[in-house]
Amino acid sequence: MADVLASVMPAQWSVPQALKEAMDYSLQAGGKRLRPLLVIAACEALGGSREAALPVAAAIEMVHTYSLIHDDLPAMDNDDFRRGKPTNHKVFGEAAAILAGDALLTHAFYSVVQASRKHGVPAENVLSIVEDLAEMAGPRGMVGGQVADMEGEQGMTDLEQLQYIHLHKTGDLIIFSLLAGGRIAGASVRQLEALRGFGTRIGLAFQIQDDILDLVGDESKLGKSTGSDIKQQKVTYPYFIGLDASREEVERLTEEARRMVLEGGFQDPQRLLEIAEYLMKRDH
Amino acid sequence: MADVLASVMPAQWSVPQALKEAMDYSLQAGGKRLRPLLVIAACEALGGSREAALPVAAAIEMVHTYSLIHDDLPAMDNDDFRRGKPTNHKVFGEAAAILAGDALLTHAFYSVVQASRKHGVPAENVLSIVEDLAEMAGPRGMVGGQVADMEGEQGMTDLEQLQYIHLHKTGDLIIFSLLAGGRIAGASVRQLEALRGFGTRIGLAFQIQDDILDLVGDESKLGKSTGSDIKQQKVTYPYFIGLDASREEVERLTEEARRMVLEGGFQDPQRLLEIAEYLMKRDH
Repeated sequence: MADVLASVMPAQWSVPQALKEAMDYSLQAGGKRLRPLLVIAACEALGGSREAALPVAAAIEMVHTYSLIHDDLPAMDNDDFRRGKPTNHKVFGEAAAILAGDALLTHAFYSVVQASRKHGVPAENVLSIVEDLAEMAGPRGMVGGQVADMEGEQGMTDLEQLQYIHLHKTGDLIIFSLLAGGRIAGASVRQLEALRGFGTRIGLAFQIQDDILDLVGDESKLGKSTGSDIKQQKVTYPYFIGLDASREEVERLTEEARRMVLEGGFQDPQRLLEIAEYLMKRDH
Repeated sequence: MADVLASVMPAQWSVPQALKEAMDYSLQAGGKRLRPLLVIAACEALGGSREAALPVAAAIEMVHTYSLIHDDLPAMDNDDFRRGKPTNHKVFGEAAAILAGDALLTHAFYSVVQASRKHGVPAENVLSIVEDLAEMAGPRGMVGGQVADMEGEQGMTDLEQLQYIHLHKTGDLIIFSLLAGGRIAGASVRQLEALRGFGTRIGLAFQIQDDILDLVGDESKLGKSTGSDIKQQKVTYPYFIGLDASREEVERLTEEARRMVLEGGFQDPQRLLEIAEYLMKRDH
């Protein structure tokens, strides 16, 4: 992904160098690249080409990255470091970080459209991807989850509210990635529903696993200190249902996700199954 | 536009009330509504229906509104008032203002897609509108202009740089509005080029007129104090070429814009000509 921005921004565009640098800095900061992997895996599971999935894979990483840049701002979580590197606003200043986030979010939609322009994905399918992205990253999706999370920090959270936050703040972009991969490959309605069910379950399992790792993970593997949820008085799955039940819930959700993919009528579900397995067993 | 958000957000969506309020607050804060008017005028000039233009008209107002919310933030222009009302972050706090801006930008793309879903505009045309919006509001467009403007405040501006800032910070969304209206009505390549030429000229004229009004306008009509550009040491058109030459430039650009529309082969160019005339003569 080192050249992701260069690959999705026309070379002849005149863009201020400072803006490109700020966008690139956070895009290249690493991370699991889970969302782009899901786009590609869903597309390939249905016999679609990896190439055609790349513009949307880049788009979802841009959206994820913008959300981290804005989350880290002093007015939000006020984080100085992410993945061991100074956060965007620590390097470029707050104004530039806000604008780099805005630019990444906007440019993601440009990148989605290139699935049609460069790879001939039908306009109707790409328009559905645009609609899904706007719904799942916007006020009903990720941003809505973010606002609910802020409200939760003011002590208004119950388990239902926590599920709302997890589903929208984290889950929606995971579900989007799978649906988009499917749409690129021309998925049927039944296949799209299987991808949605799979995504809903691995998204929630992913988040519960995060909560568990924050409680009992190995700091050297995580690359961050554990116990931060307790320190920040954040409510989590283990807080509500205990550690053992949380672990069982991750296994149950992963098993359900597996079944949905196996029964979804995919040509080659192997990669999706591996990702679900990896997420359940991960220690960082 | 009082009900713009309600009209473009599905009633069954579960969106945190606090987020909806922060989005609505700035959308309803008034202003000239120039950009939505341009979408509708361009669409009707080509015989398209006003109804079909509304989702895109709402979208461009959302993008304009998000840009104002983020511009006003303490880390950016740090403005407490806009159009005589407290700015978004003064009412809802900085974190909510950042998120309301993010949500408006994202939801604008959802609204654009509804031109296809609700009014049957062909998917290919709507996809071009999405692509234009991402290009003209993103790193090559409005956000790029914003970054160049920030750099300009550090004393790096010449007339060429000032034109770059004006074209992208203000002009691009005006050009977008006209092209989008044209695309909804199924404009030909020649008609789109006429709309682009018209928009480039009225966009620049609009900005020069702003500079002139800041220098010699009537404070009671403007609803803000004049001379702020000088106080902020902002370079302007009058600064570079003088007041008289700036006025002549506005007239020259408006005349060129008129001619482009008259020669563009439109069924009914009257409304577009009226808008150009109004922008040239406005005193606020």
